[in-house]
Amino acid sequence: MPSLTITTIAGIPYIRKGDDLAAIIIEGLTHQVQKLDDGDILVIAQKVVSKAEGACVHIDEVTASDQAIQLAKKVNKDPRKVEVILSESKRLVKVHKHPNANEGIIITEHNLGHISANAAVDESNTDTPGELILLPKDPDASAKRIASALSHHYQCRVGIVISDTFGRPWRLGQTNVAIGLANIPALNLLEGELDAYGRPLKVTAPALADELAGASGLLMSKQGKCPVILFKGLEWACQPDSQASDLLRPTKEDLFA
Amino acid sequence: MPSLTITTIAGIPYIRKGDDLAAIIIEGLTHQVQKLDDGDILVIAQKVVSKAEGACVHIDEVTASDQAIQLAKKVNKDPRKVEVILSESKRLVKVHKHPNANEGIIITEHNLGHISANAAVDESNTDTPGELILLPKDPDASAKRIASALSHHYQCRVGIVISDTFGRPWRLGQTNVAIGLANIPALNLLEGELDAYGRPLKVTAPALADELAGASGLLMSKQGKCPVILFKGLEWACQPDSQASDLLRPTKEDLFA
Repeated sequence: MPSLTITTIAGIPYIRKGDDLAAIIIEGLTHQVQKLDDGDILVIAQKVVSKAEGACVHIDEVTASDQAIQLAKKVNKDPRKVEVILSESKRLVKVHKHPNANEGIIITEHNLGHISANAAVDESNTDTPGELILLPKDPDASAKRIASALSHHYQCRVGIVISDTFGRPWRLGQTNVAIGLANIPALNLLEGELDAYGRPLKVTAPALADELAGASGLLMSKQGKCPVILFKGLEWACQPDSQASDLLRPTKEDLFA
Repeated sequence: MPSLTITTIAGIPYIRKGDDLAAIIIEGLTHQVQKLDDGDILVIAQKVVSKAEGACVHIDEVTASDQAIQLAKKVNKDPRKVEVILSESKRLVKVHKHPNANEGIIITEHNLGHISANAAVDESNTDTPGELILLPKDPDASAKRIASALSHHYQCRVGIVISDTFGRPWRLGQTNVAIGLANIPALNLLEGELDAYGRPLKVTAPALADELAGASGLLMSKQGKCPVILFKGLEWACQPDSQASDLLRPTKEDLFA
């Protein structure tokens, strides 16, 4: 019967600017006596990609604009962090502070199109106090570079998903979603296919890349150091031009903007 | 290294009212020479639970109210289907029809608290034209009944997630989410714990039950007949009083109502 195995890659060290992630992944796999086979998929936490690419900024290097200072007052955040959030964003979606809460919430549309809290700017899991980790400049390109290096090394087709952890408007808790893709289709388009009883499936499109990212969260605990998760056994159709933005609802279709 | 295996349970027949899902799952497992071990988790598609419990209504038996007729005109849907959607819901969240679209969208808060399109009323994957499948009356109770029967049979602790397929406001495609739970914690509360670099994790709570549901979508294809997915190898803390409503953001905290 169809079956897939999800495994952590142990021993990934603290990643710093300039580190070669593909080489580090190969070393980790070799160390646990594994290799990549055709169709294997890796989900990689955005943080290690951002760190390797130097997509970070130190808060002491940031000067807050007037807009950031105003907004920071409203939500009781460091104006320099708000400045970074604003510069990573193309649109404020929602700003809210509950009277009893210490800090408010800034939900924005990131320059890459993802809607999330604080433009995905993150200050946890860095060993440098005051360092803010941003999304990679072009996460699809990052995924494709890593996929290419691994495909070359193992001489097989490899899928890559770069994931980040987002909240959801109506559900508590966070899940991982895909912010960068190589070879993995964003959506499994089923339009035109029939359901198990011959009825046409109208608008069904499982968000394959987000399902993979979400599944990686089962082993990629935030307090642990498991930023790379290996999937073996899944059947999927390679889509070399896939991109994470295929997962984004166009702004004009957003009913909750 | 930590590793988990996700497998389909093959040969689940078409489920009808009164069917004993636990017995059918045991038969399926036995047939593929598997059994449940301590800590195993099953994600079960809502549809088979609803069918087994008779949580269905035939559209010919429905009389549309005036409110349903008005709303149906606005979104170009069958007023009887709209009547069912309204009777399953406690609140309309958003009604929208794009001028060029054939049908509009009705997003509601289901009586159980979940916010989704059409109050999760479903007309696919039934062999009876005109039959609408509703959510189970009390999906947590359904999950706990199935967990209890399986725990008794295999003499071990079993986790159950009942899943349904929901869209997301800002991302295209659907993912499975948890609508019923037995033993599985809804959220992995990490508050108070430290990240890998000793920094406190403020508000991190991976939505474990939704991660499991989402992962099941990798093998539970909508056009296939794989409504039961088995997870082996995940470490989790049993929470006998868990419930799917732990995943719901309270209405007063909903910034997008």
